[in-house]
Order: sequence, then structure tokens, then C-alpha cells
Amino acid sequence: MDTLLVEPAGLEQVESALERFFEESKARAARIGPGYHALWETLERCTAGGKRFRPRMVMSAYQMLGGRDLANAAEVGAAFELLHTALIVHDDVIDRDFVRRGIPNVSGRYRTIAEGAGMSPEGAHHVGLSAGVIAGDLALSNAYRLLERVEAPPAVRRRLGDILDEAVFASAAGEFLDIETSLDPAMPSLEAIVDMARLKTSVYSFEGPLQAGAVLAGADEELIARLGDFGRDAGIAYQIADDLLGVFGNETRTGKTNWGDLREGKRTALLSYVSARPEWEDISALVGSPGMSAADADFVRRILVDSGAKDYSSDLAAEYAARARTHLDSDVVPSALRSALHPVVTAVVDRVH
Amino acid sequence: MDTLLVEPAGLEQVESALERFFEESKARAARIGPGYHALWETLERCTAGGKRFRPRMVMSAYQMLGGRDLANAAEVGAAFELLHTALIVHDDVIDRDFVRRGIPNVSGRYRTIAEGAGMSPEGAHHVGLSAGVIAGDLALSNAYRLLERVEAPPAVRRRLGDILDEAVFASAAGEFLDIETSLDPAMPSLEAIVDMARLKTSVYSFEGPLQAGAVLAGADEELIARLGDFGRDAGIAYQIADDLLGVFGNETRTGKTNWGDLREGKRTALLSYVSARPEWEDISALVGSPGMSAADADFVRRILVDSGAKDYSSDLAAEYAARARTHLDSDVVPSALRSALHPVVTAVVDRVH
Repeated sequence: MDTLLVEPAGLEQVESALERFFEESKARAARIGPGYHALWETLERCTAGGKRFRPRMVMSAYQMLGGRDLANAAEVGAAFELLHTALIVHDDVIDRDFVRRGIPNVSGRYRTIAEGAGMSPEGAHHVGLSAGVIAGDLALSNAYRLLERVEAPPAVRRRLGDILDEAVFASAAGEFLDIETSLDPAMPSLEAIVDMARLKTSVYSFEGPLQAGAVLAGADEELIARLGDFGRDAGIAYQIADDLLGVFGNETRTGKTNWGDLREGKRTALLSYVSARPEWEDISALVGSPGMSAADADFVRRILVDSGAKDYSSDLAAEYAARARTHLDSDVVPSALRSALHPVVTAVVDRVH
Repeated sequence: MDTLLVEPAGLEQVESALERFFEESKARAARIGPGYHALWETLERCTAGGKRFRPRMVMSAYQMLGGRDLANAAEVGAAFELLHTALIVHDDVIDRDFVRRGIPNVSGRYRTIAEGAGMSPEGAHHVGLSAGVIAGDLALSNAYRLLERVEAPPAVRRRLGDILDEAVFASAAGEFLDIETSLDPAMPSLEAIVDMARLKTSVYSFEGPLQAGAVLAGADEELIARLGDFGRDAGIAYQIADDLLGVFGNETRTGKTNWGDLREGKRTALLSYVSARPEWEDISALVGSPGMSAADADFVRRILVDSGAKDYSSDLAAEYAARARTHLDSDVVPSALRSALHPVVTAVVDRVH
């Protein structure tokens, strides 16, 4: 998540919760051995430096709905941040990415170590992925652990557990559908693209954190449902915008090449749209081809602009952003929360305009 | 775990708990799509057909210490069984194994599907591993979910959570050290081999399930500590015996080739022992070599016998089994539990004699 306007109180408490968790874990790991300690340090580095988008959602909902125990809510925020780490570490394994935010990720670090130990490139590649599997498992399981630290009545705790569970269930489904659709040479329908965006992004980044903050603050069911609706549409808008940036974005700003997604043939609203137009014939052989050159990518981008796919996607992101705003206008949303969340939607859409 | 003599009551309740969990999860997954439903079916198949060793440990400790709510304890048993599924699914990803118990595992199934969709062998291989990463994540996170279902006072719940956490923390450490030692051309010390056995096997298969059952039954700290000691040594004995079977076992009985471990160069007490002897020169180039033939394997096995490595390992397993028995003889262990656990140790050692 690149742009953030919401600045709730309590983010330092989230940092403290994460720091405490990693200090404890590293001390435990050191008792097993220096190698395991180093794995935990690597995982900590993967968690550092993020924008803390999900904790911000948790803390915003919690405070704007009258919650006062910031340290307690911060454990919920930290749990979602650790879930985020788990998902990106395993997503990188699945995408065979060895770099994130311009620096080696878990897999990148251990691939390098294995190469240094004289392993074949293929063997080192797999050692890197394996270390990523293990590190992601640690982050995932500890998201549940951090949530257990939250002080709350049993019914609230159960509810928080259900929200985290739904986030994991949906994110895994989204990852899996991504793989499944990549096996199908036909481009998925726009509906399928939107469904995947909801599963992969909305649930764990928007719906879950907002609802968890609200539940902990004691919000009523109608408001919790509205926050779910808001989160769903805001997340879809975010994902469509993110896919646009993945193809047209400035490489320096996004920290990744704006070319990988095309070469991978990543299923996006852009490709879904253009695949139903005659221009598709000119680019279908290039998209998803491992040998794609920079010039090929420029050509594909040109077609995506000329066919109207770019405008279509950017309008679609704006449309979901507008829907997200409508949910905020419901009477059940207190004005403080409304004021906190409107800028989130603006930020999502501004990224692509 | 191959041989089982303990037959506590309540195993049907464990089956019911697992069945209920998978029915609920498949119904949820079906609402997302048929592909995700099929992934859950595959995960269910990976969980079916096991010997339920860990649930047996949970239920034995619970009942022999006076626990009466079998349905409640069964949720703990089911949680450990799901953790076991998670660990074997991810272990297979790390070992690049596509078959388990003679049938395709998660990765095997999805590799075949990807090949059928026209993917390159390398691409299909990675699709298989990716599906394994996702399926293992679902099993891992839901082990925590099943534990949340247990009815118990807050202090007991926290303790159960700590035990599950320790199992995950130790198993991940064991997997990671396995990778780390495989990068080192030198064979690890026997001490390191025993440490890895404890981390990979004792904690999640013996110590954790026994202690969890005891905690739920309200056992006192001294008994819980003794069960930990017992579990540690019984698990080490089991792992050393299992490594022996991996090299000398009957393929039909173990369901895997008794050759893969040698070709992979799996670090075992056998290799640790022989690597300090002059015979090592004759086989060091063969062990861990991808091109190892059946005749090479026979030659290595002969050296392992003649050098005394086989006897040494089998004595070592017996020694840890004897230590495990000593812990049972403590006065704090009620005789019913002692009678239930002695046969477990016998079964572990009998496998290799």
C-alpha cells in the first residue's frame, strides 16, 4: 500500500508489539542456534519498513468508534501486519520472486547463501524457496499467537478469531485462483478478476482489519457489516489500481519493474478487457511470454492504451472507489470514522490519475 | 508413525472433529468456487488414512489422567493431527516429493493438472509446489482454529496455545536446520543429529500432544515436565529408528524407496557415525549424489553394516528408548499412564529389530 493519509494514534504501540514479539522470538531462536536466529532476523527485516496499512485500518476503526485501550488494539494491528508478512513471503515463493522493495527477500537471502556454499543454481533456487516456506509459516502461525494476546471477553475473542480466519481463508483462495487461472489460456471474465481482487486484497487488507478494530471497540452488527462493504469495494479499487501501476507505473516509485506482470501474463482487468477486442490478436502471443523484451512491453502498453483497456481499468477503479464512499455515507457510520476513511479511498484512486 | 499399540477411547471423536472441520471448510470453499473446493478435498485426503499417532498421545494422556470430556479433548487431538498434515505437506514441498504413501500428494496432484493444461515440466513442477504451499498454510492456520474450539478456563487455554506454539516453533527450526546442514559438506555431529530429531519429531509428535492432554486433564507441573522428558527421548528414539528404516527398511512396509535418503544425503546418525571412520572415503562421493544407482545404494548399505554404523544407530535408538522408559518410572506418573506409554516405546524400538 503506497499512499496513506490516515494517521491514527497507537501506531507506536503496534511497532512496540511487533518489536516485543520479534525480540522474544529471536531470543528463543538463539537458544536453538545461530542459524535459526538469523532466519528470525530475516523475517523481522521483511516485516520492517512496511507502511503498516492494515494496522492503520485496525487502529482507525478502533479509535473512531471510541476505543481507548490502544495497547490492546495494537496487538490486533500487529497480528494483521504479521499475516501480511506471511502472505507476501509465501506469495514471493509462489511467484519465484527473490527481491522485494529492491532488496533480497527471505528466498533471495538463502539462495545467495546456498550459492556461496557451492550449490548448483537450481539447488540454491530451491533452498531459497524452502527457507521462504518456513519463514512464512512462522509469520502465519504467529499472527494467531499475537491475536491470542488481546484481552477481550470470550465472545469478542471468538469474533476476532473468525475475522482472522476469514482473512486467511480468502487470501489462500485468491492465491490459489491466481494459479488456477494462469493455467487457463483464456483470459478470465471481469467478474472473475473482481472476485480475485476481493479475495486477495479486500479481505485481509481492508475488511478484516476494519472489522476487527470495530469489533474490539464494541461496534454493532450493522456498522460492522457496512465496514465490510466499504472494505470490499475499497480493496477491489485498490487492486485494480495496483495492477494498472504494475504495467504503467513508474518503476522507481513502485520499486519493481513495470514489465514483470506482462511477462508473467498476470490476469488483470486490463488483459480481461483487451482479450475481448480485436487488438488482442496482436499481443496475445507476447503477453505471458518469458522472452518478452522491453520493446515488446512498450508495444503491449501502447495497445492497452489505444484499445481503451487502460481507461476502462482506471474508470473501473474509480467506480469501485465511488461505491466504497457510498457505504461510508450510511447513517450508521459515525462522522469521525467517515472522515478518517474517505481519504483512504482518495489515496487509492489518486495513485493512478 | 507405523506401529501403534495404544488404543485410547475417543479416537472416533477425533475423527468426527476432523470430519466436521472438513465438511464446514469444503462448504465454505464451494461458495468461492469448484477449484478451491477441490483443493480442500485434496487436503482432506492428505489428512485421511494417517495412524492418528498424535491424537492417540493426546487422548491417552488425557484419559489416563482422569479426563472425562472426550469430545473436548478430541479437538486438541484434531488440532495436532492438522498440524501434522501441515508439516508433511510443506515438508514434501521442501523435499520436492510429489508422492506420499504411494499416492500423489497435493503437489503431485496439481503438477499433473498443470501438465494436462499444457504447461512445461518446470512450470508444472512449480505449480505443484505452489499448491502445496497454499494447502499447507490452510492446515497450519486451522490447527490454531481447532484449538480455539476447546472449552477450558483461560489459563488452560493459554497453556494449550503455548504448547502448540512450541510445536510449530521447534518443527520449523528442525526443518530449517535440515536445510542448513545439507549445505555443509561435513556431516553433522551426533549431538546435532539428536538435536534435530528432537526439534523435528519429539516436540510436535510426542512432547506437545502428551503435555496438551495432561494440561487439559488438570495434571500438575511435575507430571507435565516428566511427560516432556519422556516425549523428548521417545521421539529421538523414533527418529533414529525411522532413519534406519529409511535406509534398511522394507519398501513395501514403509511405502517409500529405501534409497531416496541416501541419494539425498539425508543427515542421519548412520552417516554421522560412518563419516568419522576410514570407510567414509569409499562412500562419501556416492552419498548425496543424484546419480546414485541401486547397486551404489547396496554398496553404501554394505559399508554402513560393516563399519558398525547400523549397529551403532540401532543401539542408539534403544538407548533413547530406555531413557524414555526411565522417565515413566517416576513416582509422579500414574500407573495407568505408565502402562499406556510403555508399549509406545516398545513399538518404536521393535520396528528396527
